[in-house]
Amino acid sequence: MGSLQKYKKTLPYSYALGMFPSMEAALKKPETCKRLLLHSKGENSEGAQKLVALCKDKKIRVEQADRLLTQISPKGNVFAAMVFEKFEEPLSNSKPHIVLHQLSDAGNIGTILRTALGFGFTDIGFITPCADVFDPQVIRASMGAAFSQRLSFFQDFTEYQQEYVDHQSYLFMLDGAKTLEDATHAHKEQPFTLVLGNEGKGLPQRLKEMGTAVKIPHGDQIDSLNVAIAAAIGMYEFSKKRKEK
Amino acid sequence: MGSLQKYKKTLPYSYALGMFPSMEAALKKPETCKRLLLHSKGENSEGAQKLVALCKDKKIRVEQADRLLTQISPKGNVFAAMVFEKFEEPLSNSKPHIVLHQLSDAGNIGTILRTALGFGFTDIGFITPCADVFDPQVIRASMGAAFSQRLSFFQDFTEYQQEYVDHQSYLFMLDGAKTLEDATHAHKEQPFTLVLGNEGKGLPQRLKEMGTAVKIPHGDQIDSLNVAIAAAIGMYEFSKKRKEK
Repeated sequence: MGSLQKYKKTLPYSYALGMFPSMEAALKKPETCKRLLLHSKGENSEGAQKLVALCKDKKIRVEQADRLLTQISPKGNVFAAMVFEKFEEPLSNSKPHIVLHQLSDAGNIGTILRTALGFGFTDIGFITPCADVFDPQVIRASMGAAFSQRLSFFQDFTEYQQEYVDHQSYLFMLDGAKTLEDATHAHKEQPFTLVLGNEGKGLPQRLKEMGTAVKIPHGDQIDSLNVAIAAAIGMYEFSKKRKEK
Repeated sequence: MGSLQKYKKTLPYSYALGMFPSMEAALKKPETCKRLLLHSKGENSEGAQKLVALCKDKKIRVEQADRLLTQISPKGNVFAAMVFEKFEEPLSNSKPHIVLHQLSDAGNIGTILRTALGFGFTDIGFITPCADVFDPQVIRASMGAAFSQRLSFFQDFTEYQQEYVDHQSYLFMLDGAKTLEDATHAHKEQPFTLVLGNEGKGLPQRLKEMGTAVKIPHGDQIDSLNVAIAAAIGMYEFSKKRKEK
């Protein structure tokens, strides 16, 4: 792959910054891992040694790269990074999905990936344009959750729905007709999708016919909940339901 | 108050950056507002004119301050800021509280304040040391929610509990004995407090005797939920309960 560059969106690879995300990458998606970069300052730590052993086992090349690590780490304090190839794969036909519609904030995407993994959501769709999901900041905010998930990209929501016709969509909208709780109770055994919209604009009104519009009741002192918060509450409520069965 | 400086924690005042947070400050806590700073680039916008009219009504001085605004705004793109005196007041004895134990991330605090306001939580306690609640980044992340809330600071959780003896505490801990849902169902009519711990360390084990330890069930693929996410799910579940009554 030649000499490595500072991250930008057009590169075919990205960096998992830090010991923990690098470990997740090597454990969960070793086939995407190209090289482990280590800083001489961190080489002898227990974490680094575990990571090196894992890379040996998975046949991932390890190299010392002090200068590059200083360049790519936001505060110059990252002592390990995994170089990985960007990945994409079809979502499962039977598992629940999260679909994020044109999200623009990298931090929100990272937080949603992490929360999703916690609540057992392993299939995440992205409607483009959206923030760069493979930006090292997102991978870091997700704490490497992305490596345990299937990620897939779509031009618009229609394209998504045409591929996953069995999934019932729940669209999170401020003027949703049903509360989240009612929608969860009424939900029958069937794969489902929680759909969340852009930070500023929410979901387009035209999507309403394509699923059940749900709202999370809150007071009018705020315009809306943050999208990562709304997604988390949605996943929490639906995962309670799945546990009851 | 002399000439204004770039924000630092030791100043007795801070800045609400942006039209919307400035408006919230002037509407909800005018007594703390010292001056409105406007940039000549934004002066003629509709938002600025509304803000100026409001300041006239509330007798808040307005001044043009291009250089200072450029200095204090993170990306140099803030055209209005309210200078406000830092505030603190006792929490309500009858309303539910959120208590944040030594939180270290400013963004988390801002998000929690905003979510809390959405779910009708207007009383927020902070156990120190914690991130600077009046940092302009926090106020901005809260979208000005802080101006609609009572904020109070405590040396430790014991000090808090001694002041609010009627509140029943729910402590969010990974090894909580009860699930959030069970705890909510069992909760009797009584003021309550949701207590959340530091991002890395959580709540100290010794707090367990001081309330009911609750957990939000999630899979073991992640160590823990982000604290702003856990707080939101807690507030959501308890606010459903309050609505039933």
